[in-house]
Amino acid sequence: MHRAFSHDAASIGIVGAGTIGTSWAALFLATGRHVTVVDSDPQAMARLRPAIEAVAGDLVALGVGDPRSHWDRLTAAGGDWSSLAGVDLVQENGPESLAAKRAIHAAVEEVVRPETLIASSTSGLMPSDLQDGARHPDRILIGHPFNPPHLLPLVELVPGRQTAPEAVVAADAVYRAVGKVPVVLRREIAGHLATRLVAALWREAVYLVEQGVCDLDDIDRAIAAGPGPRWAVLGQGLSYHLGGGAGGLARFLEVFDAPIRSWWDDLGTPVFDADSKQALVAGAEALEASVGGRDALIRQRNEALLAVLRAPGPLSARRPGGERAPD
Amino acid sequence: MHRAFSHDAASIGIVGAGTIGTSWAALFLATGRHVTVVDSDPQAMARLRPAIEAVAGDLVALGVGDPRSHWDRLTAAGGDWSSLAGVDLVQENGPESLAAKRAIHAAVEEVVRPETLIASSTSGLMPSDLQDGARHPDRILIGHPFNPPHLLPLVELVPGRQTAPEAVVAADAVYRAVGKVPVVLRREIAGHLATRLVAALWREAVYLVEQGVCDLDDIDRAIAAGPGPRWAVLGQGLSYHLGGGAGGLARFLEVFDAPIRSWWDDLGTPVFDADSKQALVAGAEALEASVGGRDALIRQRNEALLAVLRAPGPLSARRPGGERAPD
Repeated sequence: MHRAFSHDAASIGIVGAGTIGTSWAALFLATGRHVTVVDSDPQAMARLRPAIEAVAGDLVALGVGDPRSHWDRLTAAGGDWSSLAGVDLVQENGPESLAAKRAIHAAVEEVVRPETLIASSTSGLMPSDLQDGARHPDRILIGHPFNPPHLLPLVELVPGRQTAPEAVVAADAVYRAVGKVPVVLRREIAGHLATRLVAALWREAVYLVEQGVCDLDDIDRAIAAGPGPRWAVLGQGLSYHLGGGAGGLARFLEVFDAPIRSWWDDLGTPVFDADSKQALVAGAEALEASVGGRDALIRQRNEALLAVLRAPGPLSARRPGGERAPD
Repeated sequence: MHRAFSHDAASIGIVGAGTIGTSWAALFLATGRHVTVVDSDPQAMARLRPAIEAVAGDLVALGVGDPRSHWDRLTAAGGDWSSLAGVDLVQENGPESLAAKRAIHAAVEEVVRPETLIASSTSGLMPSDLQDGARHPDRILIGHPFNPPHLLPLVELVPGRQTAPEAVVAADAVYRAVGKVPVVLRREIAGHLATRLVAALWREAVYLVEQGVCDLDDIDRAIAAGPGPRWAVLGQGLSYHLGGGAGGLARFLEVFDAPIRSWWDDLGTPVFDADSKQALVAGAEALEASVGGRDALIRQRNEALLAVLRAPGPLSARRPGGERAPD
């Protein structure tokens, strides 16, 4: 018999006030949740409010809400773990080390209720490893956001071997309620889902640069002018589905079986040595320079992402924003 | 000494009035170019004007122009190859067969001037193979659009072994002048550039579905809520470049060298058999159903792509439209 995990999570704990943690804090605060942030580093705590203010405009533009309207619901708790006692979900953003995260989870479990969910933002660790030795491993899972986390809606939910199905359902509901788009993996795997797809594309991109077919800036321009806009709207399954005409994906996979296999056979394995990396860096720097430098690039990236995310679309990435927390 | 290839191409020949050919015709006509379409199939010729009308609104919305303002510049020439005599560039959209395309190119070379460019829309053939036996192989190259071609700006320019550098420069100028974003490959390779990147991503997507990690609809939702919007704006090189903080891509590749290699090592090789395909098709059909069916999906796809392409962005995919043809 499992404990009842909260589906609305009016009170959120954030462990770690770095880039990811403050982004989570801003998001939850924007929807009116009570947010308690724990980080024993005084400098990190000092940056919390400025970091939330920096992304507030984007959250307003996305329709999520304005975190600056709810400063009274933000608790900057420093190293006081006991302040997490009443929260419904802890979003853990500790260092990417199994030992560090296990220690954090142990400290959290000392103070929270047994039905409090513990979600880790880890990109590189496996949930079952985080569960080993936990007091209540069934409420531990991964909730991995995608960078920049305050803008991109994806959260990968990855259960470990001991995660209760009810905990996954509850975490899914919590993230949906704040406007995120959770995708639940059926089982854990290195890199979760999206990072593996990115890694596959990147491997071929590096190979093409190494082979002298093109430079990295050509690859980025080709992505942004070709498959990129389609991926922002459809993903690849639906893209091929439409490419198959009235017969859909079934027809596409029949007609293109041989070409797809031949492309797969021809994909390369990069060397990825110092020369290769230098060529990649040169391509990225050329692109950055063409855009007007780093600050201009970040500004334009955020403006463009906002516009893309606010566009109507067939998939659910462009949701109108979060639901208000029950007051 | 090479002949002078036209950089403005006031007159365009289109061979083949299928989906791709009519899309090219609509684009060139929208910018006021004279467009001559050759296709010996009377039914294809009968569909030419309706097909152009169907995409006219999108071309207006993109700022390219309205093809319906220039019907007097459209020549539906049927099987009359001699009508191509005066064109500056022939965009060839014949069947994906080397023999068929060689026969088309030979017929074109019979009638056009020696300095007329011949660009093939082929996705699967190599330009050097198209050049074998040509009268003027130096003006033959690949200009591969991306589906849906009237919306996505990418054109992959691929020279063959005998293509003159001046022909590549000229074709690049012609496509830019009509609002396309050409990317020039340094040498030919199977699948050109973007199709290889898509194939790499798709291989891992199929593997994850086969492994039971998730369904295809999860993959599409994850792409559209995560890396997809970023790819529409930045490509992957600039995404990692920004992921590296102030140290840029150089720093990123240093810090993430081991994780990237471990992800690459862990990427899978799918079986891609009948069961696998059935699972993929089920995922695509579930997504289509969730969106309201095929017609709704296409309508939403086009609306969303238009919005994405009109959004401001750091890369050059979202150009304001084509230049007018010299009258």
